[in-house]
Amino acid sequence: MELHGKNFLGAKISAEGQTCFAAINPSLNQELAPQFIEASPAEIDQAMALAETAFQIYRQQPAEKIAQFLEAMAEEILQLGDTLVQRAHAETALPEARLLGERARTIGQLKMFAALVRDGSWTEACIDRAIPDRKPLPKPDLRRKLIPLGPVVVFGASNFPFAFSVAGGDTASALAAGNPVVVKAHPAHPGTSELVAGAVLRAAKSAGMPDGVFSMVHGKSNEVSLQLVRHHAAKAVGFTGSLQGGRALFNAAAARPEPIPVYAEMGSTNPIFILPSALAKNGSSIAEGLVQSVTMGVGQFCTNPGLVFGKCGPKFDAFVENAARITGSVVAGTMLTSSISARFRQRAQAFQEISGVSVAGQSSRALETQSPAYIFSTDAKTFLGQSPLHEEMFGPSTLVVGCDSDAELEAVAANLAGQLTATIFAAEDDLNNHRQLISLLEQKVGRLLFNSFPTGVEVCPSMQHGGPYPASTDARSTSVGTFAIKRFARPVCYQNFPDAALPLELQNKNARNIWRLVDNQLTKADCQ
Amino acid sequence: MELHGKNFLGAKISAEGQTCFAAINPSLNQELAPQFIEASPAEIDQAMALAETAFQIYRQQPAEKIAQFLEAMAEEILQLGDTLVQRAHAETALPEARLLGERARTIGQLKMFAALVRDGSWTEACIDRAIPDRKPLPKPDLRRKLIPLGPVVVFGASNFPFAFSVAGGDTASALAAGNPVVVKAHPAHPGTSELVAGAVLRAAKSAGMPDGVFSMVHGKSNEVSLQLVRHHAAKAVGFTGSLQGGRALFNAAAARPEPIPVYAEMGSTNPIFILPSALAKNGSSIAEGLVQSVTMGVGQFCTNPGLVFGKCGPKFDAFVENAARITGSVVAGTMLTSSISARFRQRAQAFQEISGVSVAGQSSRALETQSPAYIFSTDAKTFLGQSPLHEEMFGPSTLVVGCDSDAELEAVAANLAGQLTATIFAAEDDLNNHRQLISLLEQKVGRLLFNSFPTGVEVCPSMQHGGPYPASTDARSTSVGTFAIKRFARPVCYQNFPDAALPLELQNKNARNIWRLVDNQLTKADCQ
Repeated sequence: MELHGKNFLGAKISAEGQTCFAAINPSLNQELAPQFIEASPAEIDQAMALAETAFQIYRQQPAEKIAQFLEAMAEEILQLGDTLVQRAHAETALPEARLLGERARTIGQLKMFAALVRDGSWTEACIDRAIPDRKPLPKPDLRRKLIPLGPVVVFGASNFPFAFSVAGGDTASALAAGNPVVVKAHPAHPGTSELVAGAVLRAAKSAGMPDGVFSMVHGKSNEVSLQLVRHHAAKAVGFTGSLQGGRALFNAAAARPEPIPVYAEMGSTNPIFILPSALAKNGSSIAEGLVQSVTMGVGQFCTNPGLVFGKCGPKFDAFVENAARITGSVVAGTMLTSSISARFRQRAQAFQEISGVSVAGQSSRALETQSPAYIFSTDAKTFLGQSPLHEEMFGPSTLVVGCDSDAELEAVAANLAGQLTATIFAAEDDLNNHRQLISLLEQKVGRLLFNSFPTGVEVCPSMQHGGPYPASTDARSTSVGTFAIKRFARPVCYQNFPDAALPLELQNKNARNIWRLVDNQLTKADCQ
Repeated sequence: MELHGKNFLGAKISAEGQTCFAAINPSLNQELAPQFIEASPAEIDQAMALAETAFQIYRQQPAEKIAQFLEAMAEEILQLGDTLVQRAHAETALPEARLLGERARTIGQLKMFAALVRDGSWTEACIDRAIPDRKPLPKPDLRRKLIPLGPVVVFGASNFPFAFSVAGGDTASALAAGNPVVVKAHPAHPGTSELVAGAVLRAAKSAGMPDGVFSMVHGKSNEVSLQLVRHHAAKAVGFTGSLQGGRALFNAAAARPEPIPVYAEMGSTNPIFILPSALAKNGSSIAEGLVQSVTMGVGQFCTNPGLVFGKCGPKFDAFVENAARITGSVVAGTMLTSSISARFRQRAQAFQEISGVSVAGQSSRALETQSPAYIFSTDAKTFLGQSPLHEEMFGPSTLVVGCDSDAELEAVAANLAGQLTATIFAAEDDLNNHRQLISLLEQKVGRLLFNSFPTGVEVCPSMQHGGPYPASTDARSTSVGTFAIKRFARPVCYQNFPDAALPLELQNKNARNIWRLVDNQLTKADCQ
């Protein structure tokens, strides 16, 4: 399959821009063919205008048609076969096994949203029936359900070229809710993006979806991103990436004449708290699991645990030594891009220069393009005094912080910024002795784990992937799991509407057999 | 009951500020005793710090205790009896009957949220059970529920001194979700606010709530409002008022180091579309109902219909004449404040100076302090060309716009800004002939009405009060009805937690008998 390097404005392939860039193979530090052409302002406007027009048709599609579209996407992505996996490997250096797993997850997500749309209960249908003889005033008939927001702009993430990219969670949930999507392809895997975009467009065509339901533009410059977010037709934004990038999009969206929601997932340090009895009982298995979690995928997960807190003492020292020893034998890997790897090395250097921080352990690397793994250690006072230590270091590294007392454990917890996750390793007596710590952590995170590691994000209704700022710009929302569909929808209430003019989900007969709140009681029964 | 004019910093009464202001009786244009003292920066900081501390206790309160607190608030407000109603009448010129109705609604809302909290299903509990032998990876145990955000800043509205003020919808829903509240009293009814704040604090005390769960500060200056929104302890903002005011708070919140959600409900023009068959059948009753809806409460409702669209012709001319005639006999009323009334007169004057706009009808006024009602008329081309005609005119006025064709009706609909409501008067054949119009309107509003007027906002689960910008800053949320509780909550996921350490709502035994999504099935059953 030959790559063309152009933008998809709906079904049209277009390359009117003047700026080109190539993907780089990070293992070889070599350019990959072809050149990709950054979208021009006129092309971006076309993609958004097509999405705006398509919305008028797409928002009226029956659930079954949208479900078929999502399933066709899954099928078309699978059909890309080895071509997709090989290109993704070349562009990201992620191993094939990992990419196959991520592809399965991506396909699973598409099918999950298809099932959710087909089921229909996600629309939150509510019916409050009229009481014409109520005193002092009659009660009108009121019915409410969720409807789509309009065109959604999705920014692919570098670290998940399938699951958080062109046909990833944001695209799947936005399409599932009834919104057209315009993707800004991540410039680190533009070829992978082109292949997936082609698959999405073939699915759109075979499922009979309107032209413009999906577009994808290329761009390395901030201007492309900002033009998309500022476009009047854009009604919401999904983003996974850096704090700096996410905040810039959030600021641009908030400054629009009509502000729009930005769901930016910007990573975090994912602190782990190891409590005394757990350390005494399972110190060595925790050390092993920790290093594995920190270095998995060359540490390039949003949920990578970058901070570890415990109470000082001989057992904690032994734990750190153990973790350091295991880190020493980690096989170095290649990071996603040379700039990510340069930034990682720079931050690792800066850590070492902070007085009170030392390198407890470090792996070696075989090649110049690889990144070693680090385990740093410090004490709580240094940690509390040095804000750089609170920031995410994207890569295979963690900082172990020794605390003198329970009060100091609570102080560091209270001092944490918002996080995607926090983890507590605890035995039963630990839990009883640290209720305040757990309460503090609950307020800092989207997901709280017990005796397990945060890497690995299950796709299911109970998942919450998104936490208080700066982990994300909207802690009320998740980017993983079925609830993600709600971020791209809003409620509308219909008052005194004739039954036949109501949306199907709100008519008296519950033809879709969905859960509805009728006169404040959840039921699947028809309305009398 | 003597008013003291001071701020409530939790249970403490405080007046350290240097700036004073008095309430004005708008009917008499006279100052009312006493002087109210604007909160100083230190006092605002104290109120927010108290809320932050109280949150650590309040968030852990059992649902039953929070429900009792809300019910005690309702009881204490009732206990204020005539004192409250008389002071509110003096400060707002709203008639006693209206105030009694609004008090009943306010008390009803508090009891509704008490019932919602007691019921518990609002917490969206989800359980996905572990599958330890799943291949290729075991599935962890994941459980999710909503938790409160933290201290909420609430800005009272001038036009609903009870239902959208100190103990109004935002305060009730924020407290119900488990958040402390700091109210900025509206300076147009500071005495009413003091009375209600006293009632809330007595309820907090009798229900055993922590000091700081509720505070109220006074202030006329923007600085007070901005300091509250910018305070690091504030985690969300509720506001009802003008576009200018709401947008300023939204901007301040978005520019914080940690942005927070702002739910600003900023009114709208609430367009009405009268379709041909409905006009032919019911033109005169629609004209009567329209004038009543426009002039009710001196036109001071967010849902006041400020725009009316219909198709030109003899029937439409007759309708306008009829509505104009009825408007002529409307008894003029006193608006909430002299500045609101001055602004209304100014806008009415400006309308008349736009070429193509004429006064179709106008009522007379008996007193200088009263405001006449207006009905203006124009054609679609003038309307489309003049942006001032698209903006809300707060007061007893509406603009009737004649359209030449269905295409022009659709053009004005497509051109509307976001609205709280839109209304369609239609007979059956009208609906069949105007599907595109209905689809367009659905995208502009939070609530779509059929053959009824938008004034009168029912408090129930199906209500959606909030629409696309500029009607509100967050169309995903409602400020009226049970769903309002969700605006002040966010999900947290607990992974692999021991049953006893989980929140009650997520333990295997469904002790609260709430609806839970267990392995993707809604059920009230215990978990095995």
